[in-house]
This record gives sequence, structure tokens and C-alpha cells, in this order.
Amino acid sequence: MQNDPIEHLISLLSRLPGLGRRSARRAVLKMLMDPADKMLPLADALRAAADSVRPCEVCGNLDAASPCHICDDPHRDRRLVCVVEGVADLWALERAHAHRGTYHVLGGLLSALGGTGPEDLSVTPLLRRIEANGIEEVILALPATVDGATTNHYLTDRLKPTGAAITRLAQGVPIGGALDVLDDGTLAAAFKARRAL
Amino acid sequence: MQNDPIEHLISLLSRLPGLGRRSARRAVLKMLMDPADKMLPLADALRAAADSVRPCEVCGNLDAASPCHICDDPHRDRRLVCVVEGVADLWALERAHAHRGTYHVLGGLLSALGGTGPEDLSVTPLLRRIEANGIEEVILALPATVDGATTNHYLTDRLKPTGAAITRLAQGVPIGGALDVLDDGTLAAAFKARRAL
Ligand SMILES: [Zn+2]
Ligand SMILES: [Zn+2]
Repeated sequence: MQNDPIEHLISLLSRLPGLGRRSARRAVLKMLMDPADKMLPLADALRAAADSVRPCEVCGNLDAASPCHICDDPHRDRRLVCVVEGVADLWALERAHAHRGTYHVLGGLLSALGGTGPEDLSVTPLLRRIEANGIEEVILALPATVDGATTNHYLTDRLKPTGAAITRLAQGVPIGGALDVLDDGTLAAAFKARRAL
Repeated sequence: MQNDPIEHLISLLSRLPGLGRRSARRAVLKMLMDPADKMLPLADALRAAADSVRPCEVCGNLDAASPCHICDDPHRDRRLVCVVEGVADLWALERAHAHRGTYHVLGGLLSALGGTGPEDLSVTPLLRRIEANGIEEVILALPATVDGATTNHYLTDRLKPTGAAITRLAQGVPIGGALDVLDDGTLAAAFKARRAL
């Protein structure tokens, strides 16, 4: 029943994860009380992020710079690379201050049902990084699911010839749970208690 | 730990009602997977709404046109005006298809504690509309709270001299509840069973 611009905005917002139609309506109404201060900065921030953020050419993290600020940080231990399924998990580990090395975003997990094979994952770039940069330990921080375990096995086989130590997070990670919804303490503890495969 | 544009966007988004920091993060990550399709349209929609939406000069509704599409609709019964506290309530009544007349947004409720007096509400414009347009019934659709009741009493006194019938929503509206969180059926029923004051 509302005219174009309001309804259009509500329906775009309500597609965001975590925002239903009701919350989207409430958010739009709140922003419309002070559009210059609430809507235009958000529009600018969306545009700035869309224009500047891209995947890091080294690790696959999303950042305004490539190499990203983590790959570019001289205080990071480059001999330690942590393999994650996606950027959400990378961010979660960063929030937990769990890792002082660098990352590698795999871009998914092996999945027979989902039809994801090794060629869909960033495995060859990982092998190249390990060989080119003298990486000493590869920490597999994949979820404790069937697909995560399958991917752990596969990566262990593929990475063994490099001579790097291969570890995975301690079983403090709940079975079937996603990494990025865990509290920081659990994540940090599981990280610390990682063990050799 | 994330660089400027991403963190900035997350913190703006997480200020919206209904979105915490975690949902904001998830939303940004999802949008960053496809910025051209997910972020730029939202940026444009925010800008379009901020540029075009303003309060209707007649009723106070928020719309891209003034008079708004409700005030401008020839099929609306102009002899029937429904007084609401704010635009959220107007939208809720419209979603419920509860009302075939026009609206008047009061802009608040009388509140001794909140320091809201009659001069803070759009009462004089309402009186002018009633007198200028031969309005026959004023439906007070205010929340069933202490402030709502105070405002009902005050408006009844002020509007009586106009000769218009004054009604309020039936007591199907839960005591202490806000209008815009009610389901459409309850709202429509309360509207239909409104009674004379
Ligand atoms: Zn990187
Ligand atoms: Zn209007």
C-alpha cells in the first residue's frame, strides 16, 4: 500500500539475513525520521564497500586492500597458515584473537551431496603458497561436520608431501556447529588445543 | 580488526532496530559475495527514499508525494478521518485494510512524564481539517495505554465543538500494547467494532 521508494527499500532490506519484513519496516521508518543522518551515510557506506572491497589475491579474505591487511601485516607469522571454509570463519577467528599467523580461504568444503569437488576449492593456490613461502604448519580450522571431516582427510593427503605439519582445531568445536556462531572463548581454546593429524 | 569500509558498514547497519552486530556482519558478508547485485541497489534505494520521501502536508504520512497517495486517492472517504499516534500505526492499519477513509498523524501522545503537551501534537491542523472539509467522523486509533487514554480525553474535549462524531477502536486492542505489532485480523476487528465516545 506504500508508494514505490519506501516499499522498494523495505523489500530490499527484508532480504538481508536476520531482518524480516517487520524489522525492515521498522528500520525504514526509523531512518525516515532523519534521512540525512541515517539513510545517506548508509547509502554511501554500501557504495564505498561495494567499490573497494574484493577478495585478497593471497588468502581470499575480503578487504579494501589486496593483499589484505592480514597478509600485509609484518607482525603476522607467515610460517603458520590457517585454512578456513569461508570469510565468516576467518573473521570469527580474528575476533577471538585465536591466531597470529595468516589464513587461507578454501571457498567451501568437499560435499558429495552438494556436488562440491576438489576443483571447486582453493587447493592448488594453497599448495603453491606452502611451497613458495616455507610454511611450517597448516592449521585446518574446518567445521566438525561430515563434509569438514572429508575435507580434512583430503587436505591431509594433498598437503603431506609438502612436509608442513598439519593440525586441526581441538574437538572443542561442537559437532555439527558452524564456526562463526561460537563464542570467542570456545574458539580460542579449541585453537590453542589443536593437535597433529 | 577489519579495515575501514567493512567495519564502518557493519557498525552503521548494526544501529538499525532489529539488527545486532552479528546479523549486521552476516548481512554485509552476504552482500559482499555479490556487491553489484546486492549492495548498489540498496545504496540507490536508500538515496532515492531519502531524496523523495517527506511528510504529507495534509495528514503527516510519509510518502514520495505530498499530498500522499492516501490523501490523493479519490476512492477514500474524506468524511472519515482516523487519528494515529505515528506513521507506523498508519501503515499497520493500511496493511489490515481496516480503514477506507483518510488519516491524521498526531505525532505523539500527551504525556506528563514524557513532557509532551498539546502544543507538541498536530491538533490545530486536525481541527482545521475537520472544519474545512466537513469531516463527519473522527476515529481515535490511539494505543490503549495511560497516555493514549489521556490523549483520547483531551481530543474528545477539543473536537466536540466541531460536531463530528468521535469514536475510538474497540477494546480488542490489548492493554499496554502498541498498534503496529498487532496481527491484521485483530486490528481489523477492533476497527470494525469501534464505538462512540
Ligand atoms: Zn590476505
Ligand atoms: Zn496524506
